[in-house]
Amino acid sequence: MPTDNGSSGEGPHRELAARRLRTLVDICRALSEEVELHALMALIARRTSEALGVERSSVWLHDRKAHEVWTIVAEGELREIRMPDSEGIAGWVVRTGETAVVNDVSGDPRWNPAVDKRTGFVTRNMLSVPMDNPQGDRAGVFQCINKTAGEFDNDDVVFLQAIASQAAIYVQNARLLEARKRMFDSFVDTLADTIESRDPLTAGHSRGVMRYAVGTAQKLGLSPEEVDVIRYAALLHDYGKIGVPDQILRKPTTLTPAEYEVIKKHVHYTQQILARIHFEERLGEVPTIASHHHERLDGSGYPSGLRDGEISVGGKIIAVADVFDAVTSRRHYRGPMTVPEGVEILDDGTGTQFDPNVVAALKRFLVAEGRLEAGSFD
Amino acid sequence: MPTDNGSSGEGPHRELAARRLRTLVDICRALSEEVELHALMALIARRTSEALGVERSSVWLHDRKAHEVWTIVAEGELREIRMPDSEGIAGWVVRTGETAVVNDVSGDPRWNPAVDKRTGFVTRNMLSVPMDNPQGDRAGVFQCINKTAGEFDNDDVVFLQAIASQAAIYVQNARLLEARKRMFDSFVDTLADTIESRDPLTAGHSRGVMRYAVGTAQKLGLSPEEVDVIRYAALLHDYGKIGVPDQILRKPTTLTPAEYEVIKKHVHYTQQILARIHFEERLGEVPTIASHHHERLDGSGYPSGLRDGEISVGGKIIAVADVFDAVTSRRHYRGPMTVPEGVEILDDGTGTQFDPNVVAALKRFLVAEGRLEAGSFD
Repeated sequence: MPTDNGSSGEGPHRELAARRLRTLVDICRALSEEVELHALMALIARRTSEALGVERSSVWLHDRKAHEVWTIVAEGELREIRMPDSEGIAGWVVRTGETAVVNDVSGDPRWNPAVDKRTGFVTRNMLSVPMDNPQGDRAGVFQCINKTAGEFDNDDVVFLQAIASQAAIYVQNARLLEARKRMFDSFVDTLADTIESRDPLTAGHSRGVMRYAVGTAQKLGLSPEEVDVIRYAALLHDYGKIGVPDQILRKPTTLTPAEYEVIKKHVHYTQQILARIHFEERLGEVPTIASHHHERLDGSGYPSGLRDGEISVGGKIIAVADVFDAVTSRRHYRGPMTVPEGVEILDDGTGTQFDPNVVAALKRFLVAEGRLEAGSFD
Repeated sequence: MPTDNGSSGEGPHRELAARRLRTLVDICRALSEEVELHALMALIARRTSEALGVERSSVWLHDRKAHEVWTIVAEGELREIRMPDSEGIAGWVVRTGETAVVNDVSGDPRWNPAVDKRTGFVTRNMLSVPMDNPQGDRAGVFQCINKTAGEFDNDDVVFLQAIASQAAIYVQNARLLEARKRMFDSFVDTLADTIESRDPLTAGHSRGVMRYAVGTAQKLGLSPEEVDVIRYAALLHDYGKIGVPDQILRKPTTLTPAEYEVIKKHVHYTQQILARIHFEERLGEVPTIASHHHERLDGSGYPSGLRDGEISVGGKIIAVADVFDAVTSRRHYRGPMTVPEGVEILDDGTGTQFDPNVVAALKRFLVAEGRLEAGSFD
């Protein structure tokens, strides 16, 4: 039996401290690899439960605007749970910045059994520490629930506080990265819409092309990263129309050959505009793909007259999605075609204008969406 | 004298290990707070030099495209040094992924004295380890130079490898954040330019307004964060012109009252567009400020007829910068005014249209830029 003074007692204590420090470095390392917020929260919780010997850990983030704390629960899939920051032990910790050691929740007036009711989990004891980053901002609360051996002690508190302050930094970082991505994405979406707003009849075209292109790319089995590049390229493919005058863009009758040459310049403008944007490395192919959407397999397309092997897969996908969205939408000079009629247009151009594999993948996507009958083509 | 076996020898060794582990946690924590790449590299270097007892540490990052490694040297200010990745011990480590322990550089054939020649520093010994992140990507090389006590030993190698792999993660993170910011910024710049490109005579207007607004804000003593918000708002203030038809936007003669009402709607469009962009928290005021640029102190402006106290400082600054850039640039119907003539226009509107402090700050900026004589106003 260990005594609690002298060298034989300090040995195990120091051993535990060293082991936990190593665990902390290990957790700190694992966490810093994960930049996606939800996955990060799940990872923090899992690693901490193992390290501290508890049944469950959860990271509750503080949503100041909504006056709520929220967490994600991993049960099959990740699910979000929210509660007012005025309630429960998590609410108390986020408001006071104090640590709560509760070795029997049933006897604690702060305890709110609502979350247990929703998750079906039975909480017996709980350690909750504030997640403060070094600037003193409180990101939320870190909770460990149901210690398997004995009660929560001071070592547990110190250890969890160390993890919590690290976790606060990583969470802040992940939030900043996500906020920056959300800002860029909303900018791309909004500008695609506003550029189209010059001509009410093409409103929604870029989003339509984006949906067909993403669906087709997924059916072709492209990786999530490749699909993401195609998503941006599809949303941006017609940006160059900003350089085409109103009277040509909105002309209700057939274009003259000279006017058609002006329209064709939009691809060149798109290319010029996108070339000036410093895309992140993983999005580096966006300008190339976007500028291929009027090329044709037989080399008769524009602006470069590329042939089959020279056209990017993304460009081929957007070419098909572009035509399909256009013909199945209303235009100044005609009504919308039906889906089978649109598919017929694609069939007519397959091999000369369109890549057969891409057309086939779009058909599979339309079938999966319930917009085309499976037996209607082969 | 410590022996190298038995408990009396293990004690100090374990002590050192525990101390270094604690230092590592400490460094790891300090690093994770810094998200700006150059400052991060300087911080890593400084903390590691202290922890390892060396005169200097440097983080060399690998620039794969340029086939170079580069570092920043803190000498008064941060300065960048680059060298080919085929040269020196850093180049060898980045190519091989091996650790280099060199206790006398003068006898090592890999040693390249070029950097010492440039910095005036004298390198005696050097420990260089690769900075590999957990995905196996090599971010660069971590070097510690001139150990003050004795030679580099195995403990130093293990410790520096641990720091280097942490640092690799933080560097990657900082790069991702910067890349994402650069992407957004280039997008804002490019779109400001392309929207103006519909009318060659207003090309460069948003950038002009941005420069005057930033200069004015700085002269008013606003914080770098506030200046940044004004920078974005200035670049974006005329985005709504996308919703104004060509024939009104480019009309070479005076506008009719009805046409002027259409032009005025651009502020409303700007507001609508910007409201849909999910700005990062620190940029949350951009839409409000951008939509105030045609308000006037006396309440006679548009779209809301706000009065002095209701108009944001940023909005007042952009209002002044907007008029000043417009009158000193050429337009369809007149030539550009000189700087003193432009200032006179501002003086005429001071107190009714423009805030006196803002106009005074713009004048101070113009004087500092050498575009206005100091004695020409008071």
